[in-house]
Amino acid sequence: MKMEAIGKTRWVIPEGYIPPASMVNADHALMSHEAACILNSGDTDAHIEITVFLTDDEPIGPYKLTVGARRTSHVRFNDLEDPAPVPTGTSYASVIESDVPIVVQHTRLDSRAAEIALLSTMAFAA
Amino acid sequence: MKMEAIGKTRWVIPEGYIPPASMVNADHALMSHEAACILNSGDTDAHIEITVFLTDDEPIGPYKLTVGARRTSHVRFNDLEDPAPVPTGTSYASVIESDVPIVVQHTRLDSRAAEIALLSTMAFAA
Amino acid sequence: MKMEAIGKTRWVIPEGYIPPASMVNADHALMSHEAACILNSGDTDAHIEITVFLTDDEPIGPYKLTVGARRTSHVRFNDLEDPAPVPTGTSYASVIESDVPIVVQHTRLDSRAAEIALLSTMAFAA
Amino acid sequence: MKMEAIGKTRWVIPEGYIPPASMVNADHALMSHEAACILNSGDTDAHIEITVFLTDDEPIGPYKLTVGARRTSHVRFNDLEDPAPVPTGTSYASVIESDVPIVVQHTRLDSRAAEIALLSTMAFAA
Repeated sequence: MKMEAIGKTRWVIPEGYIPPASMVNADHALMSHEAACILNSGDTDAHIEITVFLTDDEPIGPYKLTVGARRTSHVRFNDLEDPAPVPTGTSYASVIESDVPIVVQHTRLDSRAAEIALLSTMAFAA
Repeated sequence: MKMEAIGKTRWVIPEGYIPPASMVNADHALMSHEAACILNSGDTDAHIEITVFLTDDEPIGPYKLTVGARRTSHVRFNDLEDPAPVPTGTSYASVIESDVPIVVQHTRLDSRAAEIALLSTMAFAA
Repeated sequence: MKMEAIGKTRWVIPEGYIPPASMVNADHALMSHEAACILNSGDTDAHIEITVFLTDDEPIGPYKLTVGARRTSHVRFNDLEDPAPVPTGTSYASVIESDVPIVVQHTRLDSRAAEIALLSTMAFAA
Repeated sequence: MKMEAIGKTRWVIPEGYIPPASMVNADHALMSHEAACILNSGDTDAHIEITVFLTDDEPIGPYKLTVGARRTSHVRFNDLEDPAPVPTGTSYASVIESDVPIVVQHTRLDSRAAEIALLSTMAFAA
């Protein structure tokens, strides 16, 4: 079936914080992480650039990635490495730009304590 | 009383993840689940189609359902079965389309640990 | 100082669920509850009507309340009584209408388990 | 690189509540707090004024702060002191105004119980 591209090409997530620790014996799913959940519903690959803003230094980026046509990708900020890892235990913000319309939702799973906590919000379409 | 149809006809939820486990002895309310909470405030039944997008495969759908006039339905992705169950323990995204205006909110209750965690956000009106 | 009325006059919260139980010895602040947090930033009182939609029955309402000029009110659905209490342990949705612009945010505190869980999202401005 | 100013100049957060207690031995990161996460992506400093609305009294403010060009700041309401501390254990709401476009997200970390709970939502751009 032919799918339609939905969304906007620029999104903003002002909240960012990768907890510096996780519960003991956390597997990959339960490890503390922050994610940008991206949907590319259209028939063209999305070429995406993420810029990370800090509190006391110049922005880092762009981090480049591709989300295939008709695919979703839940990008963990923990996994971004080029041009530099996103610092943990400190506040950051991010701007996500794409060459085709996408939709972006922000989620954090926090397992610093013995139990998990979750937050999520739609990113701001700018 | 006569009620007015409110909302939009297309909504997007980029975040999707059905935890593969629940706390021991969880009843139906406390079982890990993801839901699309839908309000059809108008005087006409809403015929709704949900398409589920995956990370490494073609989209699944449409899942078809009806939300009656002046009714709300909290649809659990866990319960969708036709044309195929939504896979658990993996990331997905969803697009929700209706023939009349509706409003959609996304919620997850996660009871993998001994306690529960919650997240929620309004879906993106596209 | 003169304050400006900000926001919209109609808001929608598709998600609604008052947990039927709370942790043992919960005080008022930690009792399971759902709230519509309303800000009336302007210089005129806001006369508000809430309509509650159900899954299998006709809507209940309107619940009437006033939020004073330059005041905020965090309305607990648990506390609505006239024309009828909002049922607990079942899904509902709500539409909130005002005669002056307001802003509405939805929050749930869930203390069914020994610990608390929180969710929140801006309501949908319709 | 030249960065573009993104967002709006006025934001609203109707929900506000600073839990009056934290878990025993909480460090600064795990202390109960409410934050307005602000991104100023542009090349000009943002001069920001926050007004806090209460349930039974006149608004407090403005609280004044600056977020530098190309910087993010996660402002804790707990830390606002001039013209007066934000009261804890009671409901409030806030309006955030800037002389240049910004984006604002609301987050609460609640550690009243032994574990933490999180909520977050994009603020309302008014």
